[in-house]
This record gives sequence, structure tokens and C-alpha cells, in this order.
Amino acid sequence: MKIKGIIMIIMVLMLFNCKQNEIRSDADVTKIKNDEKINLMPIPKDMHLSKGRHYINENFKLSVEGQIGKMTTNNATRFLRRLSGRTGLFLDQDFITTKSKCDSAELKIISGGIGKVKLNVDESYSLEVSEDGIGLFANNGNGIIYGLETLLQLLKADENGYYFTNCKIEDEPRFPWRGLMIDVCRHFYPINVIKRNIDAMLAMKMNVLHLHLSEDQGFRIESKVFPKLHEKGSDGLYFTQNQMKEIIEYARVRGIRVYPEFDMPSHSTSWFLGYPKLSSLDTVYSVERTWGVQDPAMNPANEYTYQFLDKFIGEMSELFPDEYFHIGGDENNGIHWKKNKDIQKYMKENEIKDKHELQTKFNQRILKILTKYNKKMVGWDEILQPNMPNNIIIQSWRGKEAMIEAAKKSYNTILSNGYYIDLFWDTERHYLNDPIIKDANLSPDVEKNILGGEVTSWAEFTKAENVDSRIWPRTAAIAERFWSPKYVKNVDDMYRRLETVSFHLEELGLTHIKNREMGMRRLTNNEDVNSLRNLVNVVEPIENYTRHRRGEKKRYLQQSPLTRVVDISYSDAPIARKIRKATNEYIKKYSSETTEKSSLYFTNNPKQYLINELNKLSNNHKKLELIIANSPVLKEIKPLSENISKVAKIGLETIDHLESNKKFSQKKEQELLKILTDFKKPIAELEIRIVSAVEKLVMVASGE
Amino acid sequence: MKIKGIIMIIMVLMLFNCKQNEIRSDADVTKIKNDEKINLMPIPKDMHLSKGRHYINENFKLSVEGQIGKMTTNNATRFLRRLSGRTGLFLDQDFITTKSKCDSAELKIISGGIGKVKLNVDESYSLEVSEDGIGLFANNGNGIIYGLETLLQLLKADENGYYFTNCKIEDEPRFPWRGLMIDVCRHFYPINVIKRNIDAMLAMKMNVLHLHLSEDQGFRIESKVFPKLHEKGSDGLYFTQNQMKEIIEYARVRGIRVYPEFDMPSHSTSWFLGYPKLSSLDTVYSVERTWGVQDPAMNPANEYTYQFLDKFIGEMSELFPDEYFHIGGDENNGIHWKKNKDIQKYMKENEIKDKHELQTKFNQRILKILTKYNKKMVGWDEILQPNMPNNIIIQSWRGKEAMIEAAKKSYNTILSNGYYIDLFWDTERHYLNDPIIKDANLSPDVEKNILGGEVTSWAEFTKAENVDSRIWPRTAAIAERFWSPKYVKNVDDMYRRLETVSFHLEELGLTHIKNREMGMRRLTNNEDVNSLRNLVNVVEPIENYTRHRRGEKKRYLQQSPLTRVVDISYSDAPIARKIRKATNEYIKKYSSETTEKSSLYFTNNPKQYLINELNKLSNNHKKLELIIANSPVLKEIKPLSENISKVAKIGLETIDHLESNKKFSQKKEQELLKILTDFKKPIAELEIRIVSAVEKLVMVASGE
Repeated sequence: MKIKGIIMIIMVLMLFNCKQNEIRSDADVTKIKNDEKINLMPIPKDMHLSKGRHYINENFKLSVEGQIGKMTTNNATRFLRRLSGRTGLFLDQDFITTKSKCDSAELKIISGGIGKVKLNVDESYSLEVSEDGIGLFANNGNGIIYGLETLLQLLKADENGYYFTNCKIEDEPRFPWRGLMIDVCRHFYPINVIKRNIDAMLAMKMNVLHLHLSEDQGFRIESKVFPKLHEKGSDGLYFTQNQMKEIIEYARVRGIRVYPEFDMPSHSTSWFLGYPKLSSLDTVYSVERTWGVQDPAMNPANEYTYQFLDKFIGEMSELFPDEYFHIGGDENNGIHWKKNKDIQKYMKENEIKDKHELQTKFNQRILKILTKYNKKMVGWDEILQPNMPNNIIIQSWRGKEAMIEAAKKSYNTILSNGYYIDLFWDTERHYLNDPIIKDANLSPDVEKNILGGEVTSWAEFTKAENVDSRIWPRTAAIAERFWSPKYVKNVDDMYRRLETVSFHLEELGLTHIKNREMGMRRLTNNEDVNSLRNLVNVVEPIENYTRHRRGEKKRYLQQSPLTRVVDISYSDAPIARKIRKATNEYIKKYSSETTEKSSLYFTNNPKQYLINELNKLSNNHKKLELIIANSPVLKEIKPLSENISKVAKIGLETIDHLESNKKFSQKKEQELLKILTDFKKPIAELEIRIVSAVEKLVMVASGE
Repeated sequence: MKIKGIIMIIMVLMLFNCKQNEIRSDADVTKIKNDEKINLMPIPKDMHLSKGRHYINENFKLSVEGQIGKMTTNNATRFLRRLSGRTGLFLDQDFITTKSKCDSAELKIISGGIGKVKLNVDESYSLEVSEDGIGLFANNGNGIIYGLETLLQLLKADENGYYFTNCKIEDEPRFPWRGLMIDVCRHFYPINVIKRNIDAMLAMKMNVLHLHLSEDQGFRIESKVFPKLHEKGSDGLYFTQNQMKEIIEYARVRGIRVYPEFDMPSHSTSWFLGYPKLSSLDTVYSVERTWGVQDPAMNPANEYTYQFLDKFIGEMSELFPDEYFHIGGDENNGIHWKKNKDIQKYMKENEIKDKHELQTKFNQRILKILTKYNKKMVGWDEILQPNMPNNIIIQSWRGKEAMIEAAKKSYNTILSNGYYIDLFWDTERHYLNDPIIKDANLSPDVEKNILGGEVTSWAEFTKAENVDSRIWPRTAAIAERFWSPKYVKNVDDMYRRLETVSFHLEELGLTHIKNREMGMRRLTNNEDVNSLRNLVNVVEPIENYTRHRRGEKKRYLQQSPLTRVVDISYSDAPIARKIRKATNEYIKKYSSETTEKSSLYFTNNPKQYLINELNKLSNNHKKLELIIANSPVLKEIKPLSENISKVAKIGLETIDHLESNKKFSQKKEQELLKILTDFKKPIAELEIRIVSAVEKLVMVASGE
């Protein structure tokens, strides 16, 4: 055993030594793709593909050796079942155990240590595929499970069967903190929703799950010390401690740290139903059903608050083994603090001049409690105030300035600004948002303070049914930002790979594709969904937080339905994106201005693509109208559907014009642009995302 | 409060008094449908529809009064969310509590008592919908939650919006035991799979969940007394006791009893990994990976066995509050008993002449233990042996004779024979299988011993991903058999309603529709699934247990993939069924033999339907071939796809012949029938289910 161990270590060292850390250009990444159309996401740090193929059949076996723990055995077993599931191959191996060493195995897994979930753990791995066999080496289980995900992404097929592309991969992440925050408060998700998202996180090599567990709208974890927290503050919708342990273990085996957020002093109404003494105002509290910033806040002038939080944090520190603990700290409007005479008196006595200073005081007390329980504090960027020690982590959400400032002051920071996936942005916008801001010109030492980032999934407009479709596939692109070298930023190639990645996420139980289809069946009352799908493919929910204002007087409540067209629509409508892309390609011949690169999507000519899609849309309203007539829930999209057909007609007319070498008069141009501007107005919280493309066409087709 | 209570009781009594227990004919049920196309399933005992409609809008509210418990409040809240989800209406009410009494509410719910889960509890309810309001009355929560399910099924829409059809319904079940058995051993399902199936059971007014928890292939519940049972016998796949409590409570709130089955003395290999002393043969046991009857069995001659089982049953009796406890008792082949000298000696000493007598002896000991823990024994029909007392329940699976015999001997019995949904039968065959066998001529007293039935979902060929599609929607039709009056047996109308019911089950998270689509995306490697769907719509897995023989030497193992075409195929291929139906309609004009009633499906003429569908299929192989070429997992269906197109071509040719008033020669007929017979041969474990229809066409088109 000892000699073997040494050999293994030498093999691992040899492989790791041949790492080439040269900076590669964006073009190289494209080259990888052209070579073999590799669908890896995130792109590995260093990858060399060759022509050969390693075919597999029913005799495929894997072997594990070295230091093997549950992380490796569980994921190796899952690897076999997923491989078998995709290929239909009847693979004989059942459950991989620490004893599953098999000399004749095609896939040899050698691990230098068992997996750990801890910040800055070594997550690197080496993968080599050749006709003769497949080797996966890592210093510990974390690298092994990432290597298995990479290998599965390499699976392809040709007329001879399934194969892995021959390659040599040396991989490790760019950032050690690659997180997803899930808000389970505004809407609660059962444990299986969390689990399937953990599976998806692993597939995208993410390693931190941040659970936002308390809010004005709900307290979502069982407390045995203060049971009225979950009993009164959750409507019965919370994780038991046993369930939370289950989540933590499920994540641990997948190399993912789980840490909790308890938002304080504000965003805390749900605490006060059971423990009103914690609050700043003596009133009757109920679970908040509306969205937005609320006035209730904990009382920072009352010792009771700190005694309570000491006990509570003590309990939660034991439940969550991770060394980090998030205290929220955002959006305290100070209104209830102002209304409380004791707090005002306390401020005067202690010469605290404003709510910011008072919150810092509060945070300093909380920090002491956390330190006592061996936890490190994480908080939203509001906690970055003078007099806070720099062993806390700042999560930047309001802008990048705070993050840069924090990093310069040697605070560790993580970026979430730009990764708010509840804002209904395009994938591209998130993807190009780099944690290391180019213009900031940070020194390497300062850069090191930027640990990575977190995608934030706030839950005003998500329920268990549609939350996956809000998180995925866009989060996969952000995960690539956190993992891959900085130069990987070819947007077209990202979208190409994302399509495959998104489809493969279904194997893990993710519902982002299938529940959209289900939603359409429900909306049409089980009629033909094709015409509704055509509409959904070109519209997007209005961006940012504009959905909060539902009409003039109406507003969303926690119990409002999330089953309307807006709720099943894409943040990144796929056909609209392709129409915009095709338009850019098409107008190149009419315009010298464009600097677009050649497209990855249109093997046919973009003109034909445009004509086909616009034709489909221009005829769509006639069909969808009939469906709408029988389904009152769809009535609200009738004008939207009509407008889409009109926009498409204008597009077709314009192309026709262009093709016959005619020009629109200035008057006609203005007329058309005015109509198109009208079509940009949101209807049923949705926007038509092909209007800008048709505008471009009109402008190109117009006289000088 | 007291006066109100009395008024309520009077109201309830008034409503229940006007029940009309007249026997209605099958034709009446059809009439109900023609009247208003009601989609209720199961059909209520007594129902009067009228023309009016109760429209709803955003102001819709419900009120609860009387004796209200968690069963009513939880389901009333769920009712609101489901109503809002289907209609997109922003209903204001959030969580219904025992205090949610509201005089202005449109829906008034009055309950005489809180819900209970117990055999023979009163499950009746009265529902009245009129323009002025909706009243739902029941003697307790069980009836209330069934009434809510009925009301939701009454939701329809027209150009004015959503409405409930005016009606008066008096409903109660025909049988008190309406069960579903889920085998979580051969493949394990996570808790959320069980929960969504519980939701579906409630929607179909089923009230018993029988969990098959131990098998040769796995021990699926945590034992604190004998932890090596789940630790060694489950591959880590089991329910913790906390999870089981969660399931039991989830079911309880939905009016569903949960009772466990621990199969003994056979089907018990997984017990012996941790506790080999329990077994009959001194050997090394491992979790069984193959299917079928196995030799291992508990040792009935060793006192240790009874001491062990006493403690174990004691532990489980506490965990499962239901008064019934299933001991399995099926398929003991006696081989290991024969091999054990001690057992042979014991038999000689006690004058036990065969394995049946020995098993009876064993069962009598187990019965004593169960009685000690206040449990009543349930077992598969093998336990019906002389010398067993008649306070046990016999679950009939091998045939109906055993059930009739048992009922006559005053045993309580439940029927499962004919409800084995793992046999891949058509819905119709299950639906027409009545627990009260007509020809048996049982006296009313004997009939009373037949408590109902259980659908059995054995898990050789199901995983979490496809199990819903095996259970649903067929189980809904069986649930109607258990609930509705005996005369409800119009197959066409059942299929019509089942389509709607199946679609509505999606709202509960059931995956029977969406995972089929997902499976097709995976099989085609995310290419266009239309041609594969066309194939899937007309093929079915080979019936009964013929799938166990996979080719000549190969066999299925627990870890075998269940993602091939056969695994996403219907047991009741919808287009094949409609083609057979259309064929029967179409050939009526050529044949006087047929006695088919007018169809419910074909508003167009059946000839056109046939031509359209057969045309689609005859062209299908050309398209599917291209998909198959890129997806090796589909290679096995290539000949099947080819044959389908050929069958369809013969069908079209024959119709063409018929329409031109030509006849096939006898030789041609024989030739065609021979070809068609060949096409009946299974390929890739699948059968083409339109061959019989085309055969009929050929025969009609042939000379005398």
C-alpha cells in the first residue's frame, strides 16, 4: 500500500508539473470549439484535445484508489448511473465503495486525499483520455468530483457508438468562492428543490450554497432554543433541523459548503411574531405579505436582543458547521429606530450620530458573539463602516465601488452586484461581469482579497415550480465566470455551450425546461401549446424590479399566482436573441459600421432564418387568438400577441424592401419607428424582444 | 357558538336527508357528460347538474366553520393556491386557519368534525353550487377535502371567465379501503416522490398508502433498535424515521392512512446482511441485484427470529400509528428451509408436513406479536391457510378465487389482482376489474367483507424519474372503481375524463407527462423529438413480466438503465388506442358484426382521422432514421420504426382499396396478414399497438 501511494503521488506530481500557465486568448477558446465542438462548461484552465476517441460499451468499469472517501464513492456511483442513463448501456457496476479497485477498469480514479468542504481547499484535477484508458487524478476528492463532471461533459456519440474525446486537461478554479444564494423566505422551497439545485451547482463546479433563512416574509429554520421563531413566523413552511442536516450532508458530499444568513437588524419581521421584545416598536406583528423594504428592525439598545442573539447564534453555529455566518445587514431604513424613545436616548448617551453608526455598534456586538462561536462574519456591503475589523467578508451588492474599496482596505470580498438573477437580465450581461474590474487597476495583493462571487436568487417572483428556470441555465454562465480563466469570454460560444449544458441539467431533476412546457399546458387548458410557445420565445419579463408595481393600485403579495405567461417566460428569450443576431449578420452587407464576428448559429444564411422566423410570428396571432378565447388567464396577452405579429410583418416588409433595393422615405421611416416604439411598451409585465432588431432593419432600409 | 353549532348540524342533516340512493344506469352517467361535459373523476354517488354557472373573480373568498382541524385548513389553503394557479386570479386570502370565518365568503365550508384517518371513517360530503354561492358540508374533515377536490374539478371557463357549474352533489365512497401500494425497495424513491403521489391520491379520493419497505433488494426504513438493517441492507437509500413521520403526517392531513409492509419470511435477503442469524442458511448475504423469487428466508425454527421480530415490530408499531400492519408472506419457495437441518428437525418434531404449514405456524407467532402491539395483520393471499383466525386481512393478488374464499370464510379482504399496474396493461382492463365479482353471487353479508382494493406499483422497472408515469393516470381510473357506484363503467367516457384528470395532476408536481418529454429529449440528444414522439404514441412495453427476460442470456439488474424508449413508453399508447377506435368506427359501414357505440372522440369522420394518423406514421421512419443515426441509444428501435411505417402503409393501401370498392384476393389477404403477424414480434421490449387495427381493415377489405 505504501509503495503504491508513493507511485500515485509521483504520477499526480508529474501531471501537475506539466501545467502550462500561459495566458491564452479568447480566440484559442474558439479554436478548441472548432476543433471538436466541445461542450465543456466551465472551460478548464488548460486543455489539449486530440483527434482520437475513447469508445465505451457495456463492459465499461471504473476503479478508485488512493485516499477515497464518501465524496468520491458517491459521485463515482452517480457518474455510472448518469453515464448509463444517457447511453442506455447496461453497466454492471452497482455501488462504488472505497474497495472498488479494479485493475482492468477503463477509468482509473486516483485521489491523494479525501474531499473537504472548506474555503481554499485544493480543487484541482488532471484528466487524461486516450484510446487506451482514462485517468483522473487529484490531490483530493474535490478535484475528483469535478473531473467526473468534466468527463461526463466530454461524452459524445457517432455512428460507432458513445465515446470520450481524447484530451489532456489540467484544471483548477480562478476563484475559491463560487456561490449561489437561495432566498427560501419570500417563497419557501421544499428540500428536494434545494437538493436538485445542489446537484446542478456541482455540475457547474460551484462550491458555496448561501441560504437566506430569515426575512420579513418568513422564518425558515426550526429553532429548538426559540421555537416560536419557526412556529409563529413561517406559516408552517420551514426546514426542520434534521432536514437542514440532510441538506448540509448532501452538499458536503458534492464539495459544497452551506452557510446560513440571518438578516439583521432589519428584514426581520418574522422574528417578532414569537419574540416581540426583540423589535424596536411595541406593536402587533404579522408575517409580511408584501414585498420591498419594511420598517421593523431589531432593537439595538436593548441587552435582551444580544442575549437572545447569543443563544440563537450559538444554536445555529452548531447546526451549520461552515466557518462563515452571514448576518445580512442590508436595507435598514431606521424608521422604527427613530420611533423608539429608548433607542433615541441610547444614541444620545453613547454619542451615536446616525443609524449607520448605530448599526455598526450593533454589528460589533454581533461580531463578538460570532467570534465566540468560532464563526467569521459575512454581511451585505452596508456592514462596511469605519470601525469594523477587517476579518469580516463583504458581499457587494449595491455596486462595485464598495467591493473595490473593501478589497483595498484588505477586507475579503465577494461580488454579487451584476449576478442578481432575479432582475430578468440576459445571460450575456451577467457573463461579462467580472469580479476583477479591469479599470480598477488593483494590485495582485488587493486582487487576492476578491474571493469570488455569489449568484443571488431572490424569491419575490419564484416558487418551487418555476425557481429552477430563474436560476438555470443563466447561473451556469456565471459559474464559468467564477471558474474559468479571465480570457474566456466569447459570448457566442458561451450561448452555444449553454444550450447543451441546460439540456443536460435535466438529468439531475432540474425543471427549468419541463415546467415551462407544463406551465404552457396549464395556460392553454391543455390545448396545443405551439402558438403560445412561439410568443414565449420572443418576450421577456420587464427587467429590474419593475414587476413590483402591478398596475396602478395593485401589488403583488406572497400568495399571488406565479403561473401567468410572465412567470414561464425566459429572461433570455432564445428565438428573440437569435433574431437579433441574424439581423446583425444580415445588415452587415448594408452597413459598414457593424463589427460583429461571424456567427456561430446560422449555417444557413441569416436572411432565410429571419424570414422563416418572422413569417412564423406574423402568422402566430391568428392561431394564438383561438387559444386565448378559451382561456381567460391568457386574455392579458392578447394585445401582446397582436403586436408581435405586427412587428414581424414590419420586419418582413422591410426585408422585402431591402431585397428589392428600395429605400423607405424619411417620413415612412419615422412612421415605422414610431409604431415600433409603441410596441416596446410592456404588456402583462412582458416586453417584445425583437423590436430593436426590426428597428435596425428599418433604419438600414431608410434613405440617408 | 352553541346555537350556531346546532344550526349547522340541522343544515348538514337536511342535506344528507335528501340523498337519493336510487340505482342509476350507465346511460345516466353518459347523460351527465353530454349535458355539460363534466370532467369529474371519480364520478360522485349522486349528482344533479343545472344550467347555471357560478362565475368567480379576484374577490373570491372562502370561509370555514364548525369543527375545523388541520386537514381542512391545509387543504382549503391548497385549494386557494391551486385555484389561483389555474386561473391567474390574484386571490387575497393567504393561509386559512381555524378562525377563517367570513360571512361574505362565496364558498362556505361547514364541517361537523375534524378529519380522522381510520378505516371506515365517514368520508361523505354534500356540495351545492349556485349563482348565489357555494356550500360544502361534511360530517368531518375527510368529506370536506374530497368536496374541495370535486369543486376544483368542476372549474371551467368560457368567454366570460372562470366558473363552477351549478350542481348538487351527494357523495360517498363505495369502498372504505382505496389503496395504493408503493414498492420503495426494488428501487428507492426520495420522500418528495412519495409526497407528490400522496397529493395525487387525494385528488383521486384514495385513502390508503401501503409502503412495501423491505425486500431482497433493499431495506428502506431506519431502525434504531436494529440499525444494521438499514445500514447494511439499503446501500444508504432508506427513509429516516423522521422522514417517515413527515410522510405519515403529510398523508394524514390528506385523509390517507399509511401502513407498512415488512415482507416475511421470504423476500427478506436485505435483513440478513446485518443480522445473518435471522436467516435459514449460514452463508454470506449481499443485497440482491436481480429480480424474481429468491431462496433466502427467515428461520422459523429459531426462537431468536421471534425475539428479534418482537422488538422490531414493537419499534415499527410505534412509528406507524395505523392499526394495520402488513407482513407480506408471499412467494416463499421453501428451498432454504429444506437445506436447513434444524428446520427439518423442527418440522418433524412438531409434525409439520410442508412449507405451507410451517409458514402458518410462523404467521401465528407473528400474529401474537402484532396483537401484543395492537396491530391487525394484513398479508398477501398465501397467508390464508387453515388455522389462521379471521381477524386478519387477506390481500388477494394471485387470483380472485382466494378473495372470494376468504370473504366467504368471513375474512376481510382487499383486491389487488387485476390492479398490478406494473404489468403494462391498458387502463380499460384495470378499470373494468370490479372488486365484487359478478359471477360469484356473494350475499350482501359476504360482500361486506370485501373492503376495497389496492393498486400495486412494483418497482423492477421504475425509478424516481419514471414511476409517476407508471402509476398515473391509470391509477385514477382504478380509484374511480373503488369510489364510484358499480354502474359507472363507460370506458369511452372514462378515457375522455382521464385525459383532463391526467393533465390536472401536473399541478401537484406529478411528472408523468413532463418526464416522458424529458426522456425523449435525452434519447434524441436534444434534437427534434417529434418523430420519436410519433413512435412512442403507438407502441407499448411488452406486457406482464416478459421484460424480465432481456434477450437470451442478459437480464435486468437493479442498476440497469431505465431511460430507454421502453421506459418512457405508455402502457396505454394514446394514438394507438384512438387508431383502433377509429378503425372500429370506420369498418362499421363494411361490417354488420360490430356493436361499438358511437364514439366520443371523433367529431370528424374516423376515416379522415385514420388517414391522417397513418399518413403521419408512414412517413415517420424517414425522419426518425436521421435522429437514430446520431443517437446510438436509439439504434435498437430502428427496425421497430421501420415496421411502424410499413404497417401504416398497409393500412393506407387497404383503406384506399376499400374506398374504391375493391377487394383483396384471398392470397393477398393471407400475404398481408402474415406480414402483419411478423410486425407483432416485440423489438426492444416494445410492441406496435396498431397492428390489430390494420389486420381488421385487411380482413374487411378481403373477399368472403
